[in-house]
Amino acid sequence: MTLLPSIQLSLRPGIVEFGWGHPDSALLPVEDIARAAAHTLAQDGRLALAYGAEQGPGNLITPICTRLGHIDGTAPPAEQIFITGGVSQALDLLCTTLTRPGDIALVEAPTYHLALRILRDHKLHLIPIPADQDGLRIDLLEQQLAGLRSQGQTARLLYTVPTFSNPTGISMTVERRHALVELAQRVGLTVIEDDVYRELWYDATPPPSLFSLAPLGPIIRLGSFAKILAPGLRLGWLLAAPEIVQRCVKSGLLDSGGGVNHFTAQIVGTFLELNLLDKHVATLRVAYKQRRDALLSALRRYLPTDCTWRTPQGSFFVWIRLPANRDSAALLPQAEAAGVSYLPGALFHASGGGKRYLRLSFALLPAAEMEEGARRLGAFFQTLS
Amino acid sequence: MTLLPSIQLSLRPGIVEFGWGHPDSALLPVEDIARAAAHTLAQDGRLALAYGAEQGPGNLITPICTRLGHIDGTAPPAEQIFITGGVSQALDLLCTTLTRPGDIALVEAPTYHLALRILRDHKLHLIPIPADQDGLRIDLLEQQLAGLRSQGQTARLLYTVPTFSNPTGISMTVERRHALVELAQRVGLTVIEDDVYRELWYDATPPPSLFSLAPLGPIIRLGSFAKILAPGLRLGWLLAAPEIVQRCVKSGLLDSGGGVNHFTAQIVGTFLELNLLDKHVATLRVAYKQRRDALLSALRRYLPTDCTWRTPQGSFFVWIRLPANRDSAALLPQAEAAGVSYLPGALFHASGGGKRYLRLSFALLPAAEMEEGARRLGAFFQTLS
Repeated sequence: MTLLPSIQLSLRPGIVEFGWGHPDSALLPVEDIARAAAHTLAQDGRLALAYGAEQGPGNLITPICTRLGHIDGTAPPAEQIFITGGVSQALDLLCTTLTRPGDIALVEAPTYHLALRILRDHKLHLIPIPADQDGLRIDLLEQQLAGLRSQGQTARLLYTVPTFSNPTGISMTVERRHALVELAQRVGLTVIEDDVYRELWYDATPPPSLFSLAPLGPIIRLGSFAKILAPGLRLGWLLAAPEIVQRCVKSGLLDSGGGVNHFTAQIVGTFLELNLLDKHVATLRVAYKQRRDALLSALRRYLPTDCTWRTPQGSFFVWIRLPANRDSAALLPQAEAAGVSYLPGALFHASGGGKRYLRLSFALLPAAEMEEGARRLGAFFQTLS
Repeated sequence: MTLLPSIQLSLRPGIVEFGWGHPDSALLPVEDIARAAAHTLAQDGRLALAYGAEQGPGNLITPICTRLGHIDGTAPPAEQIFITGGVSQALDLLCTTLTRPGDIALVEAPTYHLALRILRDHKLHLIPIPADQDGLRIDLLEQQLAGLRSQGQTARLLYTVPTFSNPTGISMTVERRHALVELAQRVGLTVIEDDVYRELWYDATPPPSLFSLAPLGPIIRLGSFAKILAPGLRLGWLLAAPEIVQRCVKSGLLDSGGGVNHFTAQIVGTFLELNLLDKHVATLRVAYKQRRDALLSALRRYLPTDCTWRTPQGSFFVWIRLPANRDSAALLPQAEAAGVSYLPGALFHASGGGKRYLRLSFALLPAAEMEEGARRLGAFFQTLS
């Protein structure tokens, strides 16, 4: 019998793997989660093992609302939150609940490549809206919406990562956030705000979320414990107008199975009640900032001057622009033969573009390995000149 | 702030609640799960907290295959299993992966009412196929398929609970199982076999699963830890031809989030490795058989002779037939006013029928409370004569 893997990550010997957006497993708070699990099962373990409340358990919802109050300045009311199995599960459920095949989904270009896959699995028609150094181009979004309207069409939703974008690390400016919210409210556009990196800021706290500018709609904000606690938990939350929360709560999936991932939700509820999360997130900020700085320093040292990038102010990624004639996807096999890997920029575009870009992650690898990876990447690019 | 509930179950004072198909929380193996959780996190906890392998972790897949080998006589190969978030999540994922809105789904009549909700959320067109005391009527299924074919239509799938059906407790005979598999193979009909009650037999082991009669297709068999371990875990498995498993593994949802419910999957893998499940299932069989017998005895004592039922050989439910002119849904408010509740039979039918039936569950309540409930139900029915 083949030995089956336990985890998704697989590393190839001899290659510095900048492609994976996974956290270093050394940063996972194993002991504190063990403590929360033991506590949960010792207190009244039956509550963690029965079918969970559809909205999510109160003892997770309540501390999340409190915590968001500290982060945002205002705590959302409990009826605006729904516990999810992470951003991917939330997006999947929203597609099932709100869309039909052939519906138009607007997506940032570039954007989180695996969100595109989930939207495509629901047979949505994806239309990219360009982003620049200030985030999504609201003027182009407005043009696209007007163009659709003139053809009698309408967009069912917009998916965006406005804060520390994956892959670019850029945050949408406050001005554009207000403009997007105003536009979305005016035309009734559902905006799915993937807000998974908000707490992983390294220099300054990010601008307010779109949701907090318009908490009664039409923004749906997705949060997750994947990046701030542990991805294997498959746990997150959704903030939205009460009627969207109710559509999730009353879906067949929830009616049949009860709350999504209830057992884990109870354990994470305890983790929050024991006040273990804030200190862990503070540790992560320090660790990831060091890794970001180590990677940027190595890139400055080794990459040719015709490669450019911005300093990401949060999240896990450096988005590198190559000279105009380069194609990062075409170059990948040679780069891997030279002992370094990355994700090609074209992956992050719904329909073309991004060829001269590539994404490096600094979440997984220790500084010394990233330095070696940057050296190999630089040496490989030098051979192309 | 409102105190939010933690669990899905809510009991109304003064009412004997036969409606909920939930297990008694006293039967949940809290201490053994605490032991498995502690063991998992102490051994190599990082494996439980990283993104999980898309197919599910090897240390859960391997013991499930071994265990199914003991139950079925033959262990399925690992490439035919996929770890799910329970039957509901599996059904939801299969709908996303295999169907489009408007596709035809054939469903047993009566069948599990909440599966109907999930199929409807995916906008499938449901067509009922009647079942009798021997299970699904294969002759009527064949007629329906022929009728569809003559109109140029085809059924995308059949959903069935062939073993200890919810709501009837009936199992499909071996002859019909062979006939169904032969028909499904002949016409290429995907059959989703909800096999969640197989291990909860009280008199004799049930007939072989449809899947084990045709392991290479077109049967998809859904199993779950919800009934044999704990529903709040939200964990199960799917057995299917390797190409179906691969469609699940390669879906956007799995690519993005890694394995479904990975943390819990690792803990349940440990639970199986510690060999804690078989003794727990044996305990459940004894406990539920006692409850079944207690309910049946009370029903015989208190219900009018014009109410009839069969002895369920497994699962949680007694399916009661009332006299022909009765409507269990219309009577429910009066029954609840008399202090007893149930689920009306019409719920379990996709499009009409079942009015004179009702479902009682014996999983949740202790014998004394069920006796009182049967007494109230009997007294209420006497008032109608």
